[in-house]
Amino acid sequence: MSAVPHADLANAIRFLSADAVQKAKSGHPGMPMGMADVATVLFTRFLTFDPAAPRWPDRDRFVLSAGHGSMLLYSLLYLTGYADIDLDQIKSFRQLGARTAGHPEYGHVAGAETTTGPLGQGLANAVGMALAERMTAARFGEAVVNHRTYVIAGDGCLMEGISQEAISLAGHMKLERLIVLWDDNRICIDGDVGLASSDDVPARFQASGWRTLACDGHDPQDITRALTEAQTSDRPTLIACRTIIGKGAPTLQGTAKTHGSPLGDAEIAGARAALGWPHAPFEVPEPILSAWRTAGARGGVARVAWEDRLASLPGDERATLIRALAGDLPAGWEDAVLAAKRALIETRPKVASRKASQMALEVLVPQIPELVGGSADLTGSNLTQVKGQADILPGSYGGHYIHYGVREHGMGSLMNGLALHGGVIPYGGTFLVFADYMRPAIRMAALMGLRAIYVLTHDSIGLGEDGPTHQPVEHLASLRAIPNLWTFRPADAVETLECWALAVGRSDGPSLLALSRQDLPTLREAYGEENLSAKGAYVVAGEGPRDVTLIATGSEVTIAMAARELLAADGLAAAVVSMPSWELFEAQSAEYREAVLGPRARRVAVEAASAFGWERWVEDKTAVVGMPGFGASGPIGDLYEHFGITAEAVARVAKARAEG
Amino acid sequence: MSAVPHADLANAIRFLSADAVQKAKSGHPGMPMGMADVATVLFTRFLTFDPAAPRWPDRDRFVLSAGHGSMLLYSLLYLTGYADIDLDQIKSFRQLGARTAGHPEYGHVAGAETTTGPLGQGLANAVGMALAERMTAARFGEAVVNHRTYVIAGDGCLMEGISQEAISLAGHMKLERLIVLWDDNRICIDGDVGLASSDDVPARFQASGWRTLACDGHDPQDITRALTEAQTSDRPTLIACRTIIGKGAPTLQGTAKTHGSPLGDAEIAGARAALGWPHAPFEVPEPILSAWRTAGARGGVARVAWEDRLASLPGDERATLIRALAGDLPAGWEDAVLAAKRALIETRPKVASRKASQMALEVLVPQIPELVGGSADLTGSNLTQVKGQADILPGSYGGHYIHYGVREHGMGSLMNGLALHGGVIPYGGTFLVFADYMRPAIRMAALMGLRAIYVLTHDSIGLGEDGPTHQPVEHLASLRAIPNLWTFRPADAVETLECWALAVGRSDGPSLLALSRQDLPTLREAYGEENLSAKGAYVVAGEGPRDVTLIATGSEVTIAMAARELLAADGLAAAVVSMPSWELFEAQSAEYREAVLGPRARRVAVEAASAFGWERWVEDKTAVVGMPGFGASGPIGDLYEHFGITAEAVARVAKARAEG
Repeated sequence: MSAVPHADLANAIRFLSADAVQKAKSGHPGMPMGMADVATVLFTRFLTFDPAAPRWPDRDRFVLSAGHGSMLLYSLLYLTGYADIDLDQIKSFRQLGARTAGHPEYGHVAGAETTTGPLGQGLANAVGMALAERMTAARFGEAVVNHRTYVIAGDGCLMEGISQEAISLAGHMKLERLIVLWDDNRICIDGDVGLASSDDVPARFQASGWRTLACDGHDPQDITRALTEAQTSDRPTLIACRTIIGKGAPTLQGTAKTHGSPLGDAEIAGARAALGWPHAPFEVPEPILSAWRTAGARGGVARVAWEDRLASLPGDERATLIRALAGDLPAGWEDAVLAAKRALIETRPKVASRKASQMALEVLVPQIPELVGGSADLTGSNLTQVKGQADILPGSYGGHYIHYGVREHGMGSLMNGLALHGGVIPYGGTFLVFADYMRPAIRMAALMGLRAIYVLTHDSIGLGEDGPTHQPVEHLASLRAIPNLWTFRPADAVETLECWALAVGRSDGPSLLALSRQDLPTLREAYGEENLSAKGAYVVAGEGPRDVTLIATGSEVTIAMAARELLAADGLAAAVVSMPSWELFEAQSAEYREAVLGPRARRVAVEAASAFGWERWVEDKTAVVGMPGFGASGPIGDLYEHFGITAEAVARVAKARAEG
Repeated sequence: MSAVPHADLANAIRFLSADAVQKAKSGHPGMPMGMADVATVLFTRFLTFDPAAPRWPDRDRFVLSAGHGSMLLYSLLYLTGYADIDLDQIKSFRQLGARTAGHPEYGHVAGAETTTGPLGQGLANAVGMALAERMTAARFGEAVVNHRTYVIAGDGCLMEGISQEAISLAGHMKLERLIVLWDDNRICIDGDVGLASSDDVPARFQASGWRTLACDGHDPQDITRALTEAQTSDRPTLIACRTIIGKGAPTLQGTAKTHGSPLGDAEIAGARAALGWPHAPFEVPEPILSAWRTAGARGGVARVAWEDRLASLPGDERATLIRALAGDLPAGWEDAVLAAKRALIETRPKVASRKASQMALEVLVPQIPELVGGSADLTGSNLTQVKGQADILPGSYGGHYIHYGVREHGMGSLMNGLALHGGVIPYGGTFLVFADYMRPAIRMAALMGLRAIYVLTHDSIGLGEDGPTHQPVEHLASLRAIPNLWTFRPADAVETLECWALAVGRSDGPSLLALSRQDLPTLREAYGEENLSAKGAYVVAGEGPRDVTLIATGSEVTIAMAARELLAADGLAAAVVSMPSWELFEAQSAEYREAVLGPRARRVAVEAASAFGWERWVEDKTAVVGMPGFGASGPIGDLYEHFGITAEAVARVAKARAEG
């Protein structure tokens, strides 16, 4: 280690953070000042990383789950020498366009392994990363995949329910390379943590099979001891770091007042005096900066050694590893999809789209070894597992299927971690209605642009007897409203396969498939290479002159087809449009959209869901045959009849429009 | 106790359940069969309830958190003599219109204390109920409020993260009258619980300050012992009931196959033989039914005694208790609101609507003692606490404010429990973006029609530097899509007060207020008694002939007002419409709506959020000035400029419309 005292290294973090927050007049100084000592020990002695190659695949992952403490991370990135963060960036903290955003943003600044801020997400992402590490190590060997995942989490992260789902899964899976540093400062925003919680945090982790350690979070020797101990374990490790929030602020340290506001010039001046840091704002004396840069350079050696090991892999293994980590798909998968599509059009199965999804997975999973499935304890209902797809088990990570348990939120956030780590393309299932449980994780996937695929079955009142608690109504609208999320609702087995191909082929964001419980006939008449679902919507029946257009999605396309027959008997020509994806349809030219949908006044939509949002495509909500409110418990046929989502109702509304 | 053997009592539950599921060809027999013994002991010896007066306020609450086991509840209701459930209802299980819905539905069948099905919700509701019991007892005395809350929860409930939030809060608050019976059957849907979890469940509860007991869930003596022990404690109690799922099914018991499908005729016949139950389906021999009815009649004595105690209360206290439990508001609150409105219009404060919300609470809280506030650790940001509103503390329940901790989901679900219990009207705060974290609870409030009020501040990019993780974009749309939820976004202090009055005055469903972080001028010009927000939208400026209509909500009404000035300078007359609530506006007459909005082609909307859904009010999304995608970190002014949500942009779009 360097001759520069630890206190100087840590104080560099403290004052970069406090001064940047002060300059921005916005931010959270308390956490960076409180965790400066822990972070200094971690980044100078333990964490394996290389600022010159921030995305080097075998680096240790560091996740700042308490993302509001972003200046801790930016200080570390600057001090250790990441090119992305210079002093100007530090001085531009929280300004529009700066890399130093209010919370660390993945893809926006090198060194942010994930976007954090919504509490608990980072911790759960880290569990996914640690699991992905073990999975890719199982596949490619520990010579090339052998790293740890470190997390800094605060009390807020641990109060969120998602933390329990993540902790429980990490303990169950025995993720021994996961080390969580808990910022045990006993302060939350409202005041003392004791205002809202009496939990024995270590006991809680122990109950989920973790090892727990503790240290004085301001004593570098003690931090070092704990981190050393944490390096070897057969379980994940929690280190309770006893800290003082805002450490060094003379009158405010140890209080909630340091949490989320600038300290003020006087308090910062007092901290300078108290901590012996006479330097001007944003000035880090050369010996201190130099010591930090030396620490930052440590990882370069490890990276070069790793590159040598990589080079010694057989050529095809090496190519596969590089391809998989880059997120590129293996050659040949698209041909397999086309062959399967041809077979579907020949056999014309009448199956639920959840079953069609499983059939699609039977094609894709053998082609794309990175695909890793799972379900929140609904495997047999979501049909997310295929033959030969082995379970991932505690201590045995060679499989390709994860039993997430009844933990939708944890699943969504672990999937984000799997995708962030790389080498793995996650998909996971639950009922569509329970997308609500994992919605914060879906949003993060969309914001980060991660390839995560949600298999959401039982997608309407069509699930029947389970009733309104299980019947999605507002979910399609609420998911379509999320930017950068592709929401698919395929109408038959062919569309389901096409939508799966689009979801897997997409590398810049998440996709979801809303799938039926009930059987649906194959509608596609003729084989063609073109993925019609890629246009978002297309005419299924009734090319040529039309009196009215029936727009439907998923299971209701079949109802629209029947309505078309009824209308034909009345002498009216209807075109039926299947619209598996609003997002992709919006990306088409205005000419294509108009050609598909026909005159606006003569469009009718049918979807067994809330009409909310459908005015984008039809004139007003009287042109939508959908759900007026929540569903009910009963057999499927009775429900469709009861809520008036029938061919007769569609034909009636369409007739009025055609003749209006 | 009766001379009828326990086994007969329990087997009556088992076969009513198995046969009803079989007849419905749908449902979950495993849990009712597994928990029949525990439920029999609870309902015949411990639970205080009166089938003749299902809503008797001082009854014990029973929550079937594992709601898929609904036939357990329906069997108990039938056997103990609830008028709502006769044999025909049992035979109509899961049929459209039957009270015996797939999952128990509050308000649909007497005896369902809450709607359950989405796992974990019931447990968290129960924590809210147990807290409400202590709070109303603190207010009215234990002579009239003195009951327990029992929960049956399965492994699924406990795997959901929300359970941790609820467990943690219950332990913290020392809710000693809460008793959770854990159906410890070691089976989940995918198979053995061990497939997805290795948690030491009792240790986990202990870490949150619970007492834990265990019993053999098929031994009535042992169950009795545990429940007896649970009656006295200074902490909430978990009883781990070791059970066999589908107990009695000869080849399937103890397996996931009994969980969610009918057992089949042969298996049920085998169970009849194994358990010695020769009776036909739906036949409960008279002595057994009679013994059950006798057990059901136990509570009548307690109820009468309670009525005597109630009668001996001083008249005004009695009237207040009855009023509060009925959910009626005390006289006078509306006058206080009007006086405050008058004062606002006189003083015209320029305050953030979150601050205006606090000002509204300063009026309402003293008027309505049932109002109980709280925040998910953002009290100082949400401004949800007012002067003199004391905290509710462990063991001390006389206050009116709950520090929920960073537990939005738990907060939402506890609020539902508070509302369900009665005597309490809950409101709770977090940032609008974190509505996602509690969305499943909001949905349940809407489905059940509960008066819960969400105070959701920092409602747009207007929050500034915290960036895209904290800036809601799709949230207004996704919340407006939920049936029976009133989404308010008031434009100034007057509207905020009006919206608060509407939310408090509503007794058949939840409301939310989306509130700004930034200051907003008072727009309302003149005092009037009428609550203009009650119409959902109204003309703020520009009555008379107009060239164009600018529709806005919340903070953007001010931008629309500025755009109106710009347009006027160009010789164009614009009306500005404030639309605090889509739901209430939709409830107005078509004439009113047309008069307010003007010609469709000449409307422009401005809202710092996704345009999703706005086509309901304007011609197409090019007429919406809003957010194109996720936000960014930066000062508020820079963000509004960057995303083009400015008076100039609105005027530009409006000019094109007005001249188009």
